[in-house]
Amino acid sequence: MTSDHTADLTRLDRAHIIHPYLPGTATERVIMTSGSGCRLTDTEGRDYLDATGGLWLAQIGHGREEVADVAHEQMKKLEYFTSFWEFSNEPAIELAARLAEIAPDPLNHVYFTSGGSEGNEAAIKMARYYHHRRGEGSRTWILARSKAYHGIGYGGGSATGFPVYHEGFAPMMPHVSHLTPPWPYRSELYDGQDPTDFLIRELEERIAEIGPKNIAAMIGEPIMGVGGMLVPPADYWPRVREVLDRHGILLVFDEVVTAYGRVGEWFAAQYFDVTPDIIVTAKGITSGYVPLGALLVSDGLAEVLLRDHGFPMGYTYNGHPVATAVALANLDIIEREGLLARATSVGSFLHGELKAQLGDLPIVGEIRSVGMMLAVELVQDRATRAPLPLDPARMPHDVIRREAGVIVRDSAHSLVLSPPLVMTETEAKEVATALRGVLERTTPTGEIRPA
Amino acid sequence: MTSDHTADLTRLDRAHIIHPYLPGTATERVIMTSGSGCRLTDTEGRDYLDATGGLWLAQIGHGREEVADVAHEQMKKLEYFTSFWEFSNEPAIELAARLAEIAPDPLNHVYFTSGGSEGNEAAIKMARYYHHRRGEGSRTWILARSKAYHGIGYGGGSATGFPVYHEGFAPMMPHVSHLTPPWPYRSELYDGQDPTDFLIRELEERIAEIGPKNIAAMIGEPIMGVGGMLVPPADYWPRVREVLDRHGILLVFDEVVTAYGRVGEWFAAQYFDVTPDIIVTAKGITSGYVPLGALLVSDGLAEVLLRDHGFPMGYTYNGHPVATAVALANLDIIEREGLLARATSVGSFLHGELKAQLGDLPIVGEIRSVGMMLAVELVQDRATRAPLPLDPARMPHDVIRREAGVIVRDSAHSLVLSPPLVMTETEAKEVATALRGVLERTTPTGEIRPA
Repeated sequence: MTSDHTADLTRLDRAHIIHPYLPGTATERVIMTSGSGCRLTDTEGRDYLDATGGLWLAQIGHGREEVADVAHEQMKKLEYFTSFWEFSNEPAIELAARLAEIAPDPLNHVYFTSGGSEGNEAAIKMARYYHHRRGEGSRTWILARSKAYHGIGYGGGSATGFPVYHEGFAPMMPHVSHLTPPWPYRSELYDGQDPTDFLIRELEERIAEIGPKNIAAMIGEPIMGVGGMLVPPADYWPRVREVLDRHGILLVFDEVVTAYGRVGEWFAAQYFDVTPDIIVTAKGITSGYVPLGALLVSDGLAEVLLRDHGFPMGYTYNGHPVATAVALANLDIIEREGLLARATSVGSFLHGELKAQLGDLPIVGEIRSVGMMLAVELVQDRATRAPLPLDPARMPHDVIRREAGVIVRDSAHSLVLSPPLVMTETEAKEVATALRGVLERTTPTGEIRPA
Repeated sequence: MTSDHTADLTRLDRAHIIHPYLPGTATERVIMTSGSGCRLTDTEGRDYLDATGGLWLAQIGHGREEVADVAHEQMKKLEYFTSFWEFSNEPAIELAARLAEIAPDPLNHVYFTSGGSEGNEAAIKMARYYHHRRGEGSRTWILARSKAYHGIGYGGGSATGFPVYHEGFAPMMPHVSHLTPPWPYRSELYDGQDPTDFLIRELEERIAEIGPKNIAAMIGEPIMGVGGMLVPPADYWPRVREVLDRHGILLVFDEVVTAYGRVGEWFAAQYFDVTPDIIVTAKGITSGYVPLGALLVSDGLAEVLLRDHGFPMGYTYNGHPVATAVALANLDIIEREGLLARATSVGSFLHGELKAQLGDLPIVGEIRSVGMMLAVELVQDRATRAPLPLDPARMPHDVIRREAGVIVRDSAHSLVLSPPLVMTETEAKEVATALRGVLERTTPTGEIRPA
C-alpha cells in the first residue's frame, strides 16, 4: 500500500511528465526525496543504495552540504550573467584555469556547455570549423563506432551507434561513418584476429574509402559506457592516434562518463596515455549538483578557433557562475578526499567482490572494470557467449532494485555499475550480494525464479 | 588603470577560455562579480544597468536571496537523481503540474531539458517520431524561417536561419526549408503585398513543392529574437496554423525567449491566441539561476510518444531537482509580484521613452516592442530603410556600455532590449537616455562622433 502522498505524486507524474524511455503503460514510480553519500530515500521512506551514481555522475556522493553552501553564496552574489563576447565572471575563470591544470598538455583551453549532448554538438562543430578555417573545408566526415553513445543532439546523436537513437528521428546529420567497437570479450567480431590489429586495419581501410582529406575527426568514448563499459585493449588508442595523426584527422574523446576520477585519473586520456585534440566532459564535473559541461581544447585548435570573429556559437548558460563555482567545490572534494586513488582501490575491491560472488554463475560471461566503471556481461551460455535473452517486463536490474533496494543499470546485456567514488567497502559488498541474490535465480532463458 | 586583480583574471581568461563570438585579438574583459535587481557590478567596482536581462532571461532580476535559499535547501536534501525510466522527484512533478496549469490547453505534458538548444533538438525529434509512430514516416521535413534562431545543436541549428550558423559546420541536418520571415518594417520583402498574404501564399507553395505528406512540422519563434525582435502581423500565426492544420503539419513554437512573462503573458502563444503542438521553453523558466528547459507537449502528441517503449531520448539532467525547485520559486515570484502585467506596463513605458528620446534621430528607422522585448532598428536613411553600416570595432551597443554602463545587445542592425521584468520606470528612463547619448552622435555612415 503506497501512501496518499506518493499516490498523489504518481498521479500527477503520469498526467504531466514524459519520462525518457518510459511507456505510458508503466504505473510504477520511484520518487526520490533525499540522498546522502551512496544512499537515497523515496517518498515511501524506502532506502536505496545507489550503485549507478545517478546517471554515472555522482562522484562525491549525494547531499554534500559544503557544495550546497557554495552554490548558495554564489547565487546570492551573482547567479548568472552571460559569458558571451567579452563578458566573464570569477568562478568561470578560476575553473577554466583549474581544468587546464589537471588536463594533459596541450589541452589548455575551455569551452563551457551545460552538458554532454551540448558538448558533443560543439566538438563536431569545432573539428569541422578548425579545418574550414585552415582552408581544408572538405574535411567534414566524422568517424565513430557502433555502440557509441555521444548524446542525443542531431550531431552527437548521429555519431551515436545504436539504431534506436536514429529510427524515427532521421534524416540524421550526414557524413558519419561507424567502425567496429573494441570489445575483446566478443572475439567473434574480429575474425579470430587480434582485436586491435583488426580494428586498425578497418580504420585504415575506412579512411582510404572516404578519403583522408574528407575526414574531420574521429570521436570516441575511451571506455564505451552505454555500450556496456567496453574496455579497449591497451594498445588500441595509441595505435588509433598514430593512424589519425598520419592523416591529419583530429581525435575527440567523449569523456562525459570517464572524466573526473571515474577511472582513477582525472581523465581516461591519462589512463590510456593518449592525448586527444578535444576532451568533452560534463557529469562528474559538478557530480550533478548543477548542470555543466566543459570541452578541453588543445592550443593548436584554440589558436585557429579564436581567429577572425572567434568561434561563432554559444549556449545561454556558457560559464554559468553558480555551475562553475559548484564545479570548483566538487573538484576540491575530489582532491581533498583522494577520490582518484579511491576509485581505483574501491573499484578493484568491488570487482573482486563481484568475481567472488558471481564468478561461478553460468549466466555471467565476463566481469570487467576500470576504476569505478564496472560491468557484468550476461550470457545464455558461457561457451557460445550468446547474450542472455531479456524480458523488458522483468529485467534483472529492476528486480535487483525492487528486491534489494540496490540501483544498477542495464546496458546492452550487461549490468553496469558506476557508484559514487565515496562508496565504502561495506557498501560495495552489499552491491555484490544484491546482484548475486537475483542473478543466481536467473536462468539461461532469462527468467528469474521466485526467491 | 585596471586593478591587479582584474588584470590577473583577464590574463587567465585570455589564456584559458574560448568565449562565444570573441576573437583572440580582443583584450577587453568585463568580469561581473555581483548583481541585484537590474544592476550589475564588475571587478573594477563599476556599475551596469542590465537592459538585456543576461541573455534575455533574468525575468525576476539578479541576486534574489529567496531563490538562493530554495536552491540551498533542495541541494542539501536531494541535489540530483535521474528522471529517466520510472524515477522521479517531488520538485519535478510539482513543476510539471504547474506548467500544465499555466500553459494553454491541451499542452498538459512536460519534457525536461537543460536549455533551449537541447529543447529544439528534442522538439524536432518529437515531431518526426510522432509521425513515424503513426505510420507517416515520410513526414521528415521541417519548415523554418530565415533569421530564425533555434539554438546551435545540429537539428535546431539547421532550422536556424543565418548563414554564420551553418558556414564551416556543414553538412547540417537535411530536410529543412526556410521561408521568408514576417518583418513588416521591411515591406520590400513582400513585393508590395500585404505581408501576411505574401507569407501565407509562400507557405502554401512551399508545402506543395515539398509535398504535404513529407513535412513533419513548422518551427518558429512567435516573435523572432536574434533576428531583431521581429513582431509578425496579428493575423500571421492564426493563418499559418490554419494552413498547417489542413495539411497535418505540426506547429512548434520556440518560446525560449518569449515565455514566462517576457511578452506580458505566460506564453506568446496566449498573446497571439494560437496554440501550437509543442512549446519549447528555457531561459525565463528559472530566470537563469540554474540551467533548465521544458517542452510543453499536447495531449495528442504525448499519447503517441508514450506508446510502446516510450520516447527514446533523455538528457542527463532531465527533471533536475534543484533546477525544478528553483523554477517553482521563480514562477512564485513572477506571480506574486505581478510581473506579467508589469512586463506590459513597464515595457510600454520604456517603449514610450525610446520613442520620445530617439524618435527624431535620422538613424532610427523603427522602434517596436511587445511587452519587455524591444528593438530599435538602425538605418542609414529613413526613406530607403537601408541598414546602418556597422564597424565591428565600434558597435553602438559597445559604446553605450563603455560610456553609460547600460548593457543592450545588437541583433541584425537593431539594438535589442529585454530587461528584467522588475525594471523600474526610473531605470527605463536611464536606458533610453543612454541610447540617445550615443545614437545622437552616430552618423548615417555608422561612425560615432566623440562626446
